[in-house]
Amino acid sequence: MKFHVMTLFPDIINNVMKESIMGRAVKSGYISIDAVNIRDFAGNKHNSVDDYPYGGGAGMVMQAEPIYNCYKYICERIRAQGSNEDAVEGTEQFKMPRLIYVTPQGKTFNQKLAREYSKEEELIFLCGRYEGIDERVLELIVTDYVSVGDYVLTGGELPALVMIDAISRLVPGVLGNGASAGKESFSGSLLEYPQYTRPENWHGKEVPPVLTSGNHKLIAQWCRRQSVIRTADRRPDLIKGADLTEEEQQLVKKILMKGSDVNEIY
Amino acid sequence: MKFHVMTLFPDIINNVMKESIMGRAVKSGYISIDAVNIRDFAGNKHNSVDDYPYGGGAGMVMQAEPIYNCYKYICERIRAQGSNEDAVEGTEQFKMPRLIYVTPQGKTFNQKLAREYSKEEELIFLCGRYEGIDERVLELIVTDYVSVGDYVLTGGELPALVMIDAISRLVPGVLGNGASAGKESFSGSLLEYPQYTRPENWHGKEVPPVLTSGNHKLIAQWCRRQSVIRTADRRPDLIKGADLTEEEQQLVKKILMKGSDVNEIY
Repeated sequence: MKFHVMTLFPDIINNVMKESIMGRAVKSGYISIDAVNIRDFAGNKHNSVDDYPYGGGAGMVMQAEPIYNCYKYICERIRAQGSNEDAVEGTEQFKMPRLIYVTPQGKTFNQKLAREYSKEEELIFLCGRYEGIDERVLELIVTDYVSVGDYVLTGGELPALVMIDAISRLVPGVLGNGASAGKESFSGSLLEYPQYTRPENWHGKEVPPVLTSGNHKLIAQWCRRQSVIRTADRRPDLIKGADLTEEEQQLVKKILMKGSDVNEIY
Repeated sequence: MKFHVMTLFPDIINNVMKESIMGRAVKSGYISIDAVNIRDFAGNKHNSVDDYPYGGGAGMVMQAEPIYNCYKYICERIRAQGSNEDAVEGTEQFKMPRLIYVTPQGKTFNQKLAREYSKEEELIFLCGRYEGIDERVLELIVTDYVSVGDYVLTGGELPALVMIDAISRLVPGVLGNGASAGKESFSGSLLEYPQYTRPENWHGKEVPPVLTSGNHKLIAQWCRRQSVIRTADRRPDLIKGADLTEEEQQLVKKILMKGSDVNEIY
């Protein structure tokens, strides 16, 4: 999987992608990252890429032309590297990668979208700065407007990295252990149950006895019950999408009634 | 505003916080960042901080003790630096900062929460890795379980940075231009209108004529209308919370009816 990132701050992208699991995935060749500096396409001697907004208002707006030229450069590179080698430019077979513009005005990123993107061979991210980007270049090149959440950030680099991380870990080989990507939060609309590791007694707090019982059936039941309780308690909006038994539905009802003490149910 | 981050990858935090607006805010002293490596508190010769989960299952779980000792170290440092200088430990006046555990199992971070956190003097972030953290230390030290969105990441560092960015830009002085933090996406439940900058004609695409008219009243009306249309079109879930005139409500109704072509309305 190849990621191309259009940004004014390639160091933010490159430094994060050197570390930990993402760093190893790049080294092993499961993913590649190509951060391209939009400023290299400024086309003027001051290397300026922004200007005042038409109609007034605070802040600066990123200009269309440097972004457009940066995009064309990336497309040319992809073509030359031959991911689309069978295809001829201008024919229907030649398919440009999806271009994700990271913006609070997009649809909200979630695990389902991460799964969808993880099936692509190449993805381009466009990171904005300042007050935004000239609308005309967005209309021309963007295929996906995506937001990581309902909050405002100083730039698109961190949310692009968040998406790249979420997508990459679903790419086969990136997580050493194949089991880790599937069985966790959001896979089945339920949050994860609590985790415990050694020591068994930590500052007087014991591990729940069932977990040291060796009885796999009881352990599985406990984990499931904890997931249901936790989801109903912390994210009642998610529990609606979960596939629950009748008994579990009763449990959820009890939790959602404000009167009952959730700590007692746990 | 002082941020303390408990992490196994302090370089991820430090490298990002050197760049751009956050980097300048740190240099100017508006915010400070203190990334503490949990591994420094491993307390064993292999520097190991994780172990197998009780009850089985894939992956490793971060142990309670290194995190607890890392937390105590940060608390001691805050106390020594005297933000709480009038207070005596153990008395009610001594108030520890909020500790935010970055987890998909928390409440969802949004702009309102960013505003709330931006009023704190100190915040501690705990970044998990692997399959999670031993529940017992979380129960002891965490005050806020917070998620940046419904997707799974390889670690808590990127979402912690996302929150630090969103919070910092609301701290007075961090954005040079005081106006920029207030008037934008989510401030009033409406998304931002499109932005345009020079040139007026770009590859045959013109800036909307109203924006070059110099008529401030008409410009304001156009911006407002574009915000309403865009929000109804892209984020119908947000439009419910917006304060709309009767005419705007009619416009929204028209957009929400699947039959009408939004491009015509724009």
